[in-house]
Amino acid sequence: MRLTRYFLPVLKETPAEAQIVSHRLMLRAGMIKQASAGIYSWLPLGYRVLRRIEEIVHQEQTRAGHIPMLMPTLQSADLWRESGRYDDYGEEMLRIKDRHGRDILYGPTNEELITDIFRAHVGSYRDLPLTLYHIQWKFRDEIRPRFGVMRGREFLMKDGYNFDVDKDAALHAYNRHLVSYLRTYERMGLQAIPMRADGGPIGGDYTHEFLVLAETGESEVFYDSAITDLRFGDRAVDFDSVAECQAVLEEFTSRYARTDETHDEGVFHAQVPEDRRRSARGIEVGQIFYFGTKYSDAMGATVVNPDGQRVPVHMGSHGIGVSRLLGAIIEASHDDKGIIWPEGVTPFHAGIVNLKQGDAAADAACEGLYAALRAKGLEPLYDDREERAGAKFATMDLIGLPWRITVGPRGLAKGVVELTSRRTGESEELSPEAAVDRLAQVYAAHP
Amino acid sequence: MRLTRYFLPVLKETPAEAQIVSHRLMLRAGMIKQASAGIYSWLPLGYRVLRRIEEIVHQEQTRAGHIPMLMPTLQSADLWRESGRYDDYGEEMLRIKDRHGRDILYGPTNEELITDIFRAHVGSYRDLPLTLYHIQWKFRDEIRPRFGVMRGREFLMKDGYNFDVDKDAALHAYNRHLVSYLRTYERMGLQAIPMRADGGPIGGDYTHEFLVLAETGESEVFYDSAITDLRFGDRAVDFDSVAECQAVLEEFTSRYARTDETHDEGVFHAQVPEDRRRSARGIEVGQIFYFGTKYSDAMGATVVNPDGQRVPVHMGSHGIGVSRLLGAIIEASHDDKGIIWPEGVTPFHAGIVNLKQGDAAADAACEGLYAALRAKGLEPLYDDREERAGAKFATMDLIGLPWRITVGPRGLAKGVVELTSRRTGESEELSPEAAVDRLAQVYAAHP
Repeated sequence: MRLTRYFLPVLKETPAEAQIVSHRLMLRAGMIKQASAGIYSWLPLGYRVLRRIEEIVHQEQTRAGHIPMLMPTLQSADLWRESGRYDDYGEEMLRIKDRHGRDILYGPTNEELITDIFRAHVGSYRDLPLTLYHIQWKFRDEIRPRFGVMRGREFLMKDGYNFDVDKDAALHAYNRHLVSYLRTYERMGLQAIPMRADGGPIGGDYTHEFLVLAETGESEVFYDSAITDLRFGDRAVDFDSVAECQAVLEEFTSRYARTDETHDEGVFHAQVPEDRRRSARGIEVGQIFYFGTKYSDAMGATVVNPDGQRVPVHMGSHGIGVSRLLGAIIEASHDDKGIIWPEGVTPFHAGIVNLKQGDAAADAACEGLYAALRAKGLEPLYDDREERAGAKFATMDLIGLPWRITVGPRGLAKGVVELTSRRTGESEELSPEAAVDRLAQVYAAHP
Repeated sequence: MRLTRYFLPVLKETPAEAQIVSHRLMLRAGMIKQASAGIYSWLPLGYRVLRRIEEIVHQEQTRAGHIPMLMPTLQSADLWRESGRYDDYGEEMLRIKDRHGRDILYGPTNEELITDIFRAHVGSYRDLPLTLYHIQWKFRDEIRPRFGVMRGREFLMKDGYNFDVDKDAALHAYNRHLVSYLRTYERMGLQAIPMRADGGPIGGDYTHEFLVLAETGESEVFYDSAITDLRFGDRAVDFDSVAECQAVLEEFTSRYARTDETHDEGVFHAQVPEDRRRSARGIEVGQIFYFGTKYSDAMGATVVNPDGQRVPVHMGSHGIGVSRLLGAIIEASHDDKGIIWPEGVTPFHAGIVNLKQGDAAADAACEGLYAALRAKGLEPLYDDREERAGAKFATMDLIGLPWRITVGPRGLAKGVVELTSRRTGESEELSPEAAVDRLAQVYAAHP
């Protein structure tokens, strides 16, 4: 993309309404614009990151054998009356009357709707296991929306639902989701720690939240510091293998790690040596639940099991906060100058800065780099504006592309351009071809 | 995808509530399920086609130089009061009060919101031309939703908005959209004819609707039959070229083609020889508008022009009915047995039917085909159920994959499988390798 043809409305001043760094940087980098309280438009740069995060979630869900579909944003109140949650849910649920006076609502989650689909179409254990998921906009009418997309009202979430013939099978689905989520977050450059949590309005005692440690996190968390050394990495896990998924669960959840809702000071002290006890703030980026037959009992979702008996299906639900992840990633990865995108989610793979727009050699070298990067399947952002070098660098630093190629007449006279890492600030002079090859290598690890 | 691991709830019986063939087939093929009146869940097969259509729209919008972003589904009523449309819009607008009693609404379209973004960030002709678009769910509270996704209440639409310094530049944007839309629909296997139309609630006299001819269409249309011979094909149009886009517009709109709203019997008879006069039904799948300064005047969206004067920006808006396209494509492409997907939008590239599940040679050949197709970047649907051949064929015909590979012990003994075209019904025996190569060739034209 050429910047002169793009829409990247960066702000020079820090918006007064933003209290936390990710909100400030998303506004300043021209990623979002508030449409109304807690509701945002995703400007082109923000939309690119959102799509990239969605894509990683889709890829990892597919890898785990989960099946994508899409449920609507608006739901009939009748299903929520069946489950008993219509009255329970309180004011966070956005309740609407349509022109015929029928009660509908903007879905805050989808247990009822997916259970309705399941009971209409599935009747036998032979069709199980089954995990369906979607990535769809949700609404929770927060009384005080704040922190930008971190605590908005309209937000994008991946929510998935497993259906299994019994508790053991459902717990395997639970473990499979845990494994899949570990991999998902690491691909986004995040360490998200699974912590014992509370069921809340979804229900169930068997639940883990995934938390990214950050000073601005909304939750207080307590954990054994040894947990932060764990990495999932690029393991080839067989998602059908009960033993393999169980082993990963044990590795990542056997050490103490809890949110304040489930924290137990006595257990914490008994289990964790003093020098490894940590309390910190965390941002919740996902949660998994096994809640058994809570919804299938209430809504009559049954299957015939291998013994010929009709039994309620065992379920769980599993969410990833797609839009809030942008905030979480920025909270975890920025500096004074702006955002530092991890390679896995960056909106553009590299920036090209032309130090002397209009200089024939510099223009040609930039065009050459632009074409060569695209030929490798990479998408560069070429700053082809007539601007001072300082302004171009400041924009690139603010929007946080992990790599910058700087092109100027002086370097070109020596046959080199400059490749700079946003994270380390280190630069290296190399030929344009070598710079392209280097970036292709870097991104080969981030498909 | 292996069918035993998929969720494809095909129906044997024709649902009574469905009045038109696309609605019946989408229900029978397990593509959608009604969630409430005019609101649908997209089951996995339907979701795949929806995504595919979205992807084509994105690719063609990008080709035309338009920039993707995303606006929220819910909007503040205040912006609509500024434009004067809040009171005008009537009962089709879903009006909502949030917990603080503020008026919000589920956006039926986005002229106000995009104009608000524009006026906040753009002030100079130097930032123009600019066309922003998004693909987002909309809601229109139809009094009698019907025809499945063709006339639903919650629907997915691409809507794009151009901003230009004057009328001439805005008309180029209009033409550019027309060119882009012709290409977009043809990639979906559709002939969508641009017809002179009425501005309706968006406003503007300069507007064309794109209509797909089909008996079940909601609009009556009148046209010169010569228009149906026009094809856009794979022309390399320079979207920046005013002359090239204008030439395409003239080629495709100079002959008589109008919806009943703008039809003029006298002009029809004067311009079109009797043997080429046609009246028919059409399904509207898109519309483009130039409406000048209607919204920029009302909302104060101005830019400084090259003469240093502050002038209202010239705008247009341009829509493609993404979710309704599934219905339109099926109306245009089906037979008694089911859907016939055009290659450009098919949910899976080919079906693999194993005639003797459990037979070692047949199973191995199917697995080999499955892997070989995936290695070519194609996604097959492998029917690996323990089912009669007849049931497998009936499912494949119903869901409409354009190509089927049939694998059985008898053919394998001769070293061949059968490749069958869903559209013609013609079959050919060839080696598994040749079948894979053939499909790779076919789909090379549908990136």
